[in-house]
Amino acid sequence: MKEFDLIAKIKKQIPRRFQGKLGIGDDTEIFFESGGQSFIVTSDALVENVDFRKTTATPEQVGRKALAVNLSDLAAMGANPVGFTVTIGLPRGYGEKWVRRFYKGMMPLAKTFHVPCLGGDFSRSKTFFVSIAMIGKVLSREIVLRKGARPGDLMVVTGKLGGSIAGHHFDFTPRIREARFLAQNFHPTSMIDVSDGLIQDLKHILETSKVGAAVDLDAIPVLKEAKGLTSALSDGEDFELLFTISKGKKSRLEKAWKRKFPNVKLSWIGKIEKGKGVRWMRGGRPVSFSLKKEGFQHF
Amino acid sequence: MKEFDLIAKIKKQIPRRFQGKLGIGDDTEIFFESGGQSFIVTSDALVENVDFRKTTATPEQVGRKALAVNLSDLAAMGANPVGFTVTIGLPRGYGEKWVRRFYKGMMPLAKTFHVPCLGGDFSRSKTFFVSIAMIGKVLSREIVLRKGARPGDLMVVTGKLGGSIAGHHFDFTPRIREARFLAQNFHPTSMIDVSDGLIQDLKHILETSKVGAAVDLDAIPVLKEAKGLTSALSDGEDFELLFTISKGKKSRLEKAWKRKFPNVKLSWIGKIEKGKGVRWMRGGRPVSFSLKKEGFQHF
Repeated sequence: MKEFDLIAKIKKQIPRRFQGKLGIGDDTEIFFESGGQSFIVTSDALVENVDFRKTTATPEQVGRKALAVNLSDLAAMGANPVGFTVTIGLPRGYGEKWVRRFYKGMMPLAKTFHVPCLGGDFSRSKTFFVSIAMIGKVLSREIVLRKGARPGDLMVVTGKLGGSIAGHHFDFTPRIREARFLAQNFHPTSMIDVSDGLIQDLKHILETSKVGAAVDLDAIPVLKEAKGLTSALSDGEDFELLFTISKGKKSRLEKAWKRKFPNVKLSWIGKIEKGKGVRWMRGGRPVSFSLKKEGFQHF
Repeated sequence: MKEFDLIAKIKKQIPRRFQGKLGIGDDTEIFFESGGQSFIVTSDALVENVDFRKTTATPEQVGRKALAVNLSDLAAMGANPVGFTVTIGLPRGYGEKWVRRFYKGMMPLAKTFHVPCLGGDFSRSKTFFVSIAMIGKVLSREIVLRKGARPGDLMVVTGKLGGSIAGHHFDFTPRIREARFLAQNFHPTSMIDVSDGLIQDLKHILETSKVGAAVDLDAIPVLKEAKGLTSALSDGEDFELLFTISKGKKSRLEKAWKRKFPNVKLSWIGKIEKGKGVRWMRGGRPVSFSLKKEGFQHF
């Protein structure tokens, strides 16, 4: 079974009143609102031999990535981080030195985003895992969900895609600043971080927003290290932002973005339409195209 | 290395300003204060073959316990739960049915304490693990820390100890209500939940409060299923409350407690004194006594 199927089944099993305000399925969940602010939480784990291999990833890389993927989930809501907890399962081969290097890898990113460590737990485990829970906050009027995309909106993606294979998933900087800038000034109608693959994550937006999309294959920003277009469309763990925005804001956003983030490409990759699923386009015309694998299966 | 040693080393490695208000080491951490209220968070994991065995624990028991241990950490602060996230690492042998039963075991406790599930994450993992992060809230003036015990205070423990061996760690009800009652009406000077063993957890209070204690061996409440006094002093996972309270409140607390919680024993097990460590007493006189194993090592 796929992770999304399992989540859907569990979501049905938990009465709606025992889920949070948004209901299970967005990047994060709201748990408290006060004075116009929403407090949100997300949690994500990395597991040995699933998300990394001990022989190829350094402890610093694993620590950094564990924090970064959770910050990326906050970014997807337009939120700022407040703090995080860490639970770690340690096999015998992971000693004090390994753990110290793990935290050493985590700290620079914690400092960049001013996010404190709020404690956690060490356990023994035959398989190494780290689970981080990240708390964030955002003005309630600025929060961006997955479900707001409307027909006519334009689809935009930050940066370039397909870099996972070159190890980019270990050194990416979560798009917290870019997301805050968007949420504050351009209120995207929907947003997600590209963790499962562009098309798979786009489908999360389409399904929760109950719309379809026409994707312009010529507009997909492919990183030079990527294995071509397919890789850019379906590799997981780019951790770029994918968002939708009303058409009328395009030129203002383009200008403001170039001033604010001159080194981060912004690509207008298509538009939202009525219906469901994805139609492929090239040069303004529908084309047939098939994607063997829609995204990365973490599960 | 023991878990506490590792925590102490990591705590030193993380600059104080990148820890929360309390600093790593209490049962939970404060991450936000507003309008006289403190929001706190804790996280705790259960791991296969460390915290349970698949052959002897049902999925329902594992789900229930994962939630209960985190609720118990909130209780130790006198807080009420707000919500929780769950990350789960699933080996191939744990299918949909197992996961559904796991959540089924969790829900009655979530309902009892009105605590919603705020999402989470499924991963593949060779070893099953579940990590829960639990958010709670408490009036700032009611929060109870580990560090407030003062010479002359009395030590009190709820319930009876040593029941872990009889499987009590799977069916205990976290002492949220009892802790709230204490925090609201009697403001204990310090409190902890007994998860590592009475004496080991007492030592956490003594060390952070920088005091010692005289423990009355005749006053330890031993469960009939327990393997005697040693078991009551050192078995982990009783999840009772251990707290200290100023002497003058004893008779008022005893009366109020009997009315409010007639089925929960309250035992006055000694008193806090200057100095450090534990002295053993019987019938008001010092005795020599040695505890082979101070507590349960989860790690």
